[in-house]
Amino acid sequence: MAEGAFVKKIEDLQDESAQLLTGRATVPALEEILYHPFPLLDHGFVRVVDYMGDDNAIVQAARVSYGRGTKKSTQDKALIAYLMRHRHTTPFEMCEIKFHVKMPIFVARQWLRHRTASVNEYSARYSILSKEFYVPSLEHLAPQSSINNQGREGALSSAEAARVLDILRSDAQSAYAHYEEMMNAREDGSVIDENRTGIARELARMNLSLNFYTEFYWKIDLHNLLHFISLRADSHAQYEIRVYAEEMARIVEKWTPFAHEAFTNYRMNATTLSGGAWQVVQRMLRGEKVSQEDSGLGAREWRELMEQIEK
Amino acid sequence: MAEGAFVKKIEDLQDESAQLLTGRATVPALEEILYHPFPLLDHGFVRVVDYMGDDNAIVQAARVSYGRGTKKSTQDKALIAYLMRHRHTTPFEMCEIKFHVKMPIFVARQWLRHRTASVNEYSARYSILSKEFYVPSLEHLAPQSSINNQGREGALSSAEAARVLDILRSDAQSAYAHYEEMMNAREDGSVIDENRTGIARELARMNLSLNFYTEFYWKIDLHNLLHFISLRADSHAQYEIRVYAEEMARIVEKWTPFAHEAFTNYRMNATTLSGGAWQVVQRMLRGEKVSQEDSGLGAREWRELMEQIEK
Amino acid sequence: MAEGAFVKKIEDLQDESAQLLTGRATVPALEEILYHPFPLLDHGFVRVVDYMGDDNAIVQAARVSYGRGTKKSTQDKALIAYLMRHRHTTPFEMCEIKFHVKMPIFVARQWLRHRTASVNEYSARYSILSKEFYVPSLEHLAPQSSINNQGREGALSSAEAARVLDILRSDAQSAYAHYEEMMNAREDGSVIDENRTGIARELARMNLSLNFYTEFYWKIDLHNLLHFISLRADSHAQYEIRVYAEEMARIVEKWTPFAHEAFTNYRMNATTLSGGAWQVVQRMLRGEKVSQEDSGLGAREWRELMEQIEK
Amino acid sequence: MAEGAFVKKIEDLQDESAQLLTGRATVPALEEILYHPFPLLDHGFVRVVDYMGDDNAIVQAARVSYGRGTKKSTQDKALIAYLMRHRHTTPFEMCEIKFHVKMPIFVARQWLRHRTASVNEYSARYSILSKEFYVPSLEHLAPQSSINNQGREGALSSAEAARVLDILRSDAQSAYAHYEEMMNAREDGSVIDENRTGIARELARMNLSLNFYTEFYWKIDLHNLLHFISLRADSHAQYEIRVYAEEMARIVEKWTPFAHEAFTNYRMNATTLSGGAWQVVQRMLRGEKVSQEDSGLGAREWRELMEQIEK
Repeated sequence: MAEGAFVKKIEDLQDESAQLLTGRATVPALEEILYHPFPLLDHGFVRVVDYMGDDNAIVQAARVSYGRGTKKSTQDKALIAYLMRHRHTTPFEMCEIKFHVKMPIFVARQWLRHRTASVNEYSARYSILSKEFYVPSLEHLAPQSSINNQGREGALSSAEAARVLDILRSDAQSAYAHYEEMMNAREDGSVIDENRTGIARELARMNLSLNFYTEFYWKIDLHNLLHFISLRADSHAQYEIRVYAEEMARIVEKWTPFAHEAFTNYRMNATTLSGGAWQVVQRMLRGEKVSQEDSGLGAREWRELMEQIEK
Repeated sequence: MAEGAFVKKIEDLQDESAQLLTGRATVPALEEILYHPFPLLDHGFVRVVDYMGDDNAIVQAARVSYGRGTKKSTQDKALIAYLMRHRHTTPFEMCEIKFHVKMPIFVARQWLRHRTASVNEYSARYSILSKEFYVPSLEHLAPQSSINNQGREGALSSAEAARVLDILRSDAQSAYAHYEEMMNAREDGSVIDENRTGIARELARMNLSLNFYTEFYWKIDLHNLLHFISLRADSHAQYEIRVYAEEMARIVEKWTPFAHEAFTNYRMNATTLSGGAWQVVQRMLRGEKVSQEDSGLGAREWRELMEQIEK
Repeated sequence: MAEGAFVKKIEDLQDESAQLLTGRATVPALEEILYHPFPLLDHGFVRVVDYMGDDNAIVQAARVSYGRGTKKSTQDKALIAYLMRHRHTTPFEMCEIKFHVKMPIFVARQWLRHRTASVNEYSARYSILSKEFYVPSLEHLAPQSSINNQGREGALSSAEAARVLDILRSDAQSAYAHYEEMMNAREDGSVIDENRTGIARELARMNLSLNFYTEFYWKIDLHNLLHFISLRADSHAQYEIRVYAEEMARIVEKWTPFAHEAFTNYRMNATTLSGGAWQVVQRMLRGEKVSQEDSGLGAREWRELMEQIEK
Repeated sequence: MAEGAFVKKIEDLQDESAQLLTGRATVPALEEILYHPFPLLDHGFVRVVDYMGDDNAIVQAARVSYGRGTKKSTQDKALIAYLMRHRHTTPFEMCEIKFHVKMPIFVARQWLRHRTASVNEYSARYSILSKEFYVPSLEHLAPQSSINNQGREGALSSAEAARVLDILRSDAQSAYAHYEEMMNAREDGSVIDENRTGIARELARMNLSLNFYTEFYWKIDLHNLLHFISLRADSHAQYEIRVYAEEMARIVEKWTPFAHEAFTNYRMNATTLSGGAWQVVQRMLRGEKVSQEDSGLGAREWRELMEQIEK
């Protein structure tokens, strides 16, 4: 775990977090893990720093907008499932959560494409980055996928894998040593050579590679968080960001269990079929025998449909 | 105060708000007014339903992004002033607040132009609107401004004022009676005439005028809330929305007093001068006598500058 | 068609629209209808005022982001279908369109909930609204739906319908006459009575009902426009906004025909099944007989699934 | 200039850009530079790929919203200045522009914090990055600023500068060679060694440093572009992003000259004084002698004010 200024700050904040009385909606299961870092990859983590709202806040908002004020509140879970199924998304915006996350820069680059969140990232213009870089574990070193040019599959020979790990480690070591040399400053800020000046931090950082770690506060509402998770916990997402999305899904389960269950059933595990594909299924359900030729589907979509049916 | 389903819901929520323990940042001055409605206009109000963060959350975020982690935290107030002065806005996004507001529809129409907030509004497609409409008090009935075609100024004759109030009251009464008649339903949902069907609520509502009240949950971060206040508490804003913005400014003062003070000094009370206008001031400060002719400013900008200097 | 200042402006702009040479992507089918108002409801319309990009702009962007630069461009249509199917939405943001729309205020209220667009609306603080209000045609006067509390269904007796139309017309006539009287100004801006002052426009407007027309420029990217259409051209949307969404869908068909076709097949006509519902379909496709009891689905979801299969 | 797939695509697009007739608003000065890359840093550039609207589109929108429809259009320039001075920002959203930009990754990281834009970036998951990296020119190699921990100032000894350039060049060369080796593929995609598999591109890229170049389409409206420029063309912005912002400001000058002039005068060259600071200036203008002690300002703000007056 990093021992930089940022994390020390957070520890202070944790000290401050004496238990106080509040009239706000409170989720005991989330309180239990507040500030607690869940380790990910070799030096990363995610932790909840603050939150607002709970399953009930979604229900309250929905009852206002969708006029269900007269129904009994015993049906909260069913109402949340209904909202999720029919894509009534605004009530889910009524919950907000703030994370502190630490991850390799190439993961942060993907992450920050999501624009509907608030971010304060550790700045390498102002501060010296820690000597922490990501090196994949052996089982995650994989060749380029031959059928999917966005992914990876299979395994490397052990000789090749060893060579890759060696390159990644020694290049990062060397990049960091040069980073310090160019700034004429060490990781702890102390000067290396009184007779040199060194270059500005904002310049020196450009020599660091994309597997160095960065960290930031990330604040987002539940609707947009679920959208993030649906994209990044997907099997097509890169492994290194998927582990974060999956951890966050587990946190959402503690925070808003009804919303999490509805999301899992109606989004993560849902199947969407095109107009044409659904007609094929309907014909099949009526007992008709359908082939690709008379399905009206292209070869690729037909193949995808057959895989979905078999799955 | 309205007695509709929405408000009853909120009262329930208030009942639920037993004091609970939390490890989150907590602001005692805001806890004191949580759920408490501040009355505005003749039937409106604003109240805080939930919040996240405090002045310290701004400081934490700033220390991460602007590398001030090494400074003593005794300087929080100065840091927040610095951020506000230099328009480093992202740390202010780290605080979030949720309001329940009730206001005339023509005010809501202006309000909801602000796009960086989450909203769940009471729906007149699903529910029957209450019989509540805004009628200005006598001192706010004013003629069109002759110099500013966006505002009002001066006073009406008492006869004319009485006539206006009479029109507003009787037209709204009549519109609501027809609203009920067309739906064949009363405010409480009961049927008027068993032998008629009535039209759908989504149709009948079109007969209501823009001074009828609506209400919604409104969730926004502090940065965007301050932007809203700066535009809507401004002297050019319409009186009927300004009272809401001013009440919210007082709530911000309780919630994040350092941010409120910096906002007041560096935004609300600030003066911005164009490049040309500032040069005129500089010349004057050097003891030079400047006239409009040799100022380089147009007549309108010169006049505005003279007013600012005199003010 | 309205003859107010706004529309006159647009006509001027239309005069300016001599044909000019450009190096930008240009869509002949859209050029043909540029500035042309498509009438909707009794006084409304939608027309295209400007646009940026075409199907090819989507492809260009996708080839950059999804690394398909090596593929032949003969497969543009298939690529766009692929993007739509897999919810790769950002390339669709590369096209932008600007509409001028005119609609009743209660429709505008729903419309402007969509936050990812730029809007400049005709202001009733500054200008006098025209005497134009929406009255539904007879066939759209319907009772409240008994099974769906967000909609309408069935028909009214002719006596009741006549009474509704009479109320809507006479109330709007009366509201507008009082609007003029309170401002002491007529629709054309002329003074009614030199001995009175009248109240400000920003106040008088509150007496107008929600069926009066408003108009605005609305600028949005293709991704967000398609999202708007998917929600507002849906059978659950209110009729009075649906006609606008449907007209816009036809405009999109002219503008980006590949995107429109993919959107129709993979979004508008698509079927989404929950994890549980898809398992039921898979079991049925394997020849298994499934009943609600052993389906794992609730009664409501089972019924919805049976309807989808039958449809 | 890079010769990668992306740039080749753009050249194709340039070929396609035969001059076509359009009824849309067209800006001859911008048409002249359409698709033309303006070189920046050692391998970067910015070019305009598409645009929508012009100064007149701002005016049209303002006349709708601010009720100035009756004014003569000879005063367009004055109206735009008025809008800028009073922060009526929505009319500026009615213009849209699409750039193709190429820059070092550490610049892209700052750039993409701006969330109100559409982006499609070259993906290193799908494609092989080109061997292009930024090395600062000698005069931009500077030490850390001693008074401003976000910047740089002064100069390096020539020996130290030479050493820095040597490190940056050789580390990037070596990182790229290892990138190719780990993928078992060369820059042009050809296989290095048939007996090895290599790792996936999404993994190998993590070894590249932050000075490697990336490129993307970036589409944004004029209001948000001006906000970007005001932050990134500011003297506190890092030199390597400032050159892009400055080039874009020159492009805006060609595109919307009235908006550019108003922006320069009322934003870039404007001076904003706090409530307290402006009171000091007012007292001085009345001939009063003011010292820091009786100014009500803190030492830092007093010093900043004195600098502003002297400047």
